[in-house]
Amino acid sequence: MRQTIFSALLLAWAAIFAPLRAQNEDVERVGDMFDNALTQSSCYEWLRYLCKEIGGRPGGSAAYTAAATYTAQMLDTCGADTVWLQAVRVPTWQRGSVSRVRIINSQQVGTQELSAIALGFSGGTPKTGISGEVVEVKSLAELDKLPIEQVRGKIVFFNRPMDATKSNTFHAYGGAVDQRTSGPRRAAELGAIAAVVRSMTLRHDDVPHSGVTMFGEQKPIPALALGIESAELLSELLKGEKNLRISIVADCAAGKEQTAHNVIADWRGTELPNEIIVVGGHLDAWDVGEGAHDDGAGCVQAMEVLHLFRRMGIRLKRTLRVVLFANEENGMYGAKEYARYAREHKKEKHFAAIESDAGGAAPRGFVMDALADKQTSAHQKAQKWREILAPYGFTDLHTGGSAADISQLRDLGTVLFGYRPDSQRYFDYHHSVSDVFETVNKRELELGAAGMAALAFLMDKHGF
Amino acid sequence: MRQTIFSALLLAWAAIFAPLRAQNEDVERVGDMFDNALTQSSCYEWLRYLCKEIGGRPGGSAAYTAAATYTAQMLDTCGADTVWLQAVRVPTWQRGSVSRVRIINSQQVGTQELSAIALGFSGGTPKTGISGEVVEVKSLAELDKLPIEQVRGKIVFFNRPMDATKSNTFHAYGGAVDQRTSGPRRAAELGAIAAVVRSMTLRHDDVPHSGVTMFGEQKPIPALALGIESAELLSELLKGEKNLRISIVADCAAGKEQTAHNVIADWRGTELPNEIIVVGGHLDAWDVGEGAHDDGAGCVQAMEVLHLFRRMGIRLKRTLRVVLFANEENGMYGAKEYARYAREHKKEKHFAAIESDAGGAAPRGFVMDALADKQTSAHQKAQKWREILAPYGFTDLHTGGSAADISQLRDLGTVLFGYRPDSQRYFDYHHSVSDVFETVNKRELELGAAGMAALAFLMDKHGF
Repeated sequence: MRQTIFSALLLAWAAIFAPLRAQNEDVERVGDMFDNALTQSSCYEWLRYLCKEIGGRPGGSAAYTAAATYTAQMLDTCGADTVWLQAVRVPTWQRGSVSRVRIINSQQVGTQELSAIALGFSGGTPKTGISGEVVEVKSLAELDKLPIEQVRGKIVFFNRPMDATKSNTFHAYGGAVDQRTSGPRRAAELGAIAAVVRSMTLRHDDVPHSGVTMFGEQKPIPALALGIESAELLSELLKGEKNLRISIVADCAAGKEQTAHNVIADWRGTELPNEIIVVGGHLDAWDVGEGAHDDGAGCVQAMEVLHLFRRMGIRLKRTLRVVLFANEENGMYGAKEYARYAREHKKEKHFAAIESDAGGAAPRGFVMDALADKQTSAHQKAQKWREILAPYGFTDLHTGGSAADISQLRDLGTVLFGYRPDSQRYFDYHHSVSDVFETVNKRELELGAAGMAALAFLMDKHGF
Repeated sequence: MRQTIFSALLLAWAAIFAPLRAQNEDVERVGDMFDNALTQSSCYEWLRYLCKEIGGRPGGSAAYTAAATYTAQMLDTCGADTVWLQAVRVPTWQRGSVSRVRIINSQQVGTQELSAIALGFSGGTPKTGISGEVVEVKSLAELDKLPIEQVRGKIVFFNRPMDATKSNTFHAYGGAVDQRTSGPRRAAELGAIAAVVRSMTLRHDDVPHSGVTMFGEQKPIPALALGIESAELLSELLKGEKNLRISIVADCAAGKEQTAHNVIADWRGTELPNEIIVVGGHLDAWDVGEGAHDDGAGCVQAMEVLHLFRRMGIRLKRTLRVVLFANEENGMYGAKEYARYAREHKKEKHFAAIESDAGGAAPRGFVMDALADKQTSAHQKAQKWREILAPYGFTDLHTGGSAADISQLRDLGTVLFGYRPDSQRYFDYHHSVSDVFETVNKRELELGAAGMAALAFLMDKHGF
């Protein structure tokens, strides 16, 4: 009898205190990861190299090749078990040397240069440029309602601002970016000779922000972004001068298809080496600026996850795989090629993926995505891990779209996490000359990397 | 009977849905405040003026007077019911034009200039400077253990770094700053001729960071901060060269006591006008840099709370009072004078106070403090308001020290809230030439102000 009571007490003890102890162990282990990342990391120096020694690196460019070579070498130096380069065919486009927009017949300002930059995959102009009257719209729907003669032969000016009242700036971006991605094509379909688009930013300056525009089967027309101050000047003048004309000179042009490479490094798992946890970012970056926040930060954070485990002697049960995707900006060909490989390589199972592609600012949390049958249970599990991460600024964990590249793995049943740093400054820099190394803070970068590592560690230990 | 059932149903309905509706009303009202702040605020422009047109503004300086005049005028323009200036006597100190530290006898580097700046209330040197051997310590305790002859006539070098593993950088600061505030005095008491202190920052550069050092009744000795790289060089050299000497030239000196002013503006309450909700920051700032984060940001956020209510036509039940405190940096004489006034002015009751004095970065939340009898209930109430603020980044609300100036009101039973923005970048700038307008982001500043306004609104509506 005494023994029975003793056994019962032991069981009760185990039921109550064992989970508590496991939780405490997790808290301690995660704390060690953050301590290590904040004092021993190389990721800030890697980012400096990517930004300052290489700079902008569109998929298929020589700079991209240099970035792939550099990061592969760093991953090898960190002690990855394998590092390989996966070839991807990518479209290319050359900005050329001129992106020029001028008001040419204003009664008020005469001839006036506007701050402008060609959008990625914009058509070029003849060397002497083109000119035309400007028709301003606030949306594609508004464009579609215009009488065709108000569009044909004209230059369409998309001028709906990002909504400053969205406290998450990505929502403001999502609510305006159709003007840039789809507006010029629609304008071309309706016979416009060119399009100019208000830059996708919330900052009130005159730096123009580039980014891709997609023409599909439509023959490209010149399509350029205007700085905010330039867009507002143009809009103001149009109120009084209906026949205002602008001239555009741009020597950009589509190039040949090229080969770029996804950079892939494995840190093999001990028990379930064929189950994969991907951590990634995209290595390509627009040719303006240095691709510091978009997405050099994400790449070096993903690399730091492997390096951190290596420094701390942590091997997961599953294989940790760093994937730096080629060509997110121009069609996601890198992510698609990796997903094709993952689908066909059936002896591997893609357990989970974490991507950092929202900048290098201070952590806020993660957005989780999975197929319906896993979504709820995985979200509940992850909420417990969020509590452990909250003291380091990871207070948010909700479900929604994760990140562009890893979303290609969703159909495989992979549980996806998009890392979310603070969003307030991101669109100050995004796709512009302002996206430079100096705008990234070392500690903020390291905290993000440590959080990604901790999440990988916890999901590997506890499963979904 | 039917009527009874109907009444019962009505009561049940009221019990269940009325609180829900009240909560929804709060959510909507708070949303309107954020929308308004993000689109209509002047606080970023006010900060630009304080930084660029006025700059550093120690209490008692002509610049401080200009700042008090400017902010009082802006508050009047906003439509405050009353604006007045409360005179405060403050000590002054002049930095002079020279803060120079040189290594003078190194075998390895010969003569080498170090990056240095005099600490506030440091003693000066003769024009020809002083020189002495250097004794490095990591703490005041280590200094106290040294044989007296190793300190007397020497220059004490305090070189304990801030702890980079603290994810809240204010904790790292709190764990190191005794070296700056109290180290030089202790060195002077033990007969040292000067002290140099490793700068209080986590950033690895060579910008020296000033800040007050306190000598009490002790005669001041020269006390200067060294940039991190300079401190590390000096420490490295000292490992091999025990008789290393440095020279110091500094023409700083204490000045006369002067009059500065707290700036105080009321927006009178409708029902309980004698109950006061203070929102504040401190208007004085170190003479190096522009006092952008410390604490121009806090001042313009406090001003924006009043302006936001004015724009939206919100009058609280209680009186909203903006207080911009004089002289936080050199002894908190402004806060002490205001607290004296509050204690003596018995017809007013200080219901609550919110201070922003932790920089202008993106919001993280508030730290709450109150006397023991109120702490728990107030904290529970405030947690509900935190849920409403969380979508805007205010995810933290814990109890602890709130903010320096308003803490003087604690004994009056006032419930205190210190606004807490993200801390990662704060000590990159703090008390140095790097604390400039350009490092503050407009949206981050506005989100903080809106959160302070929302908190004031909710506490006024629901009480503690």
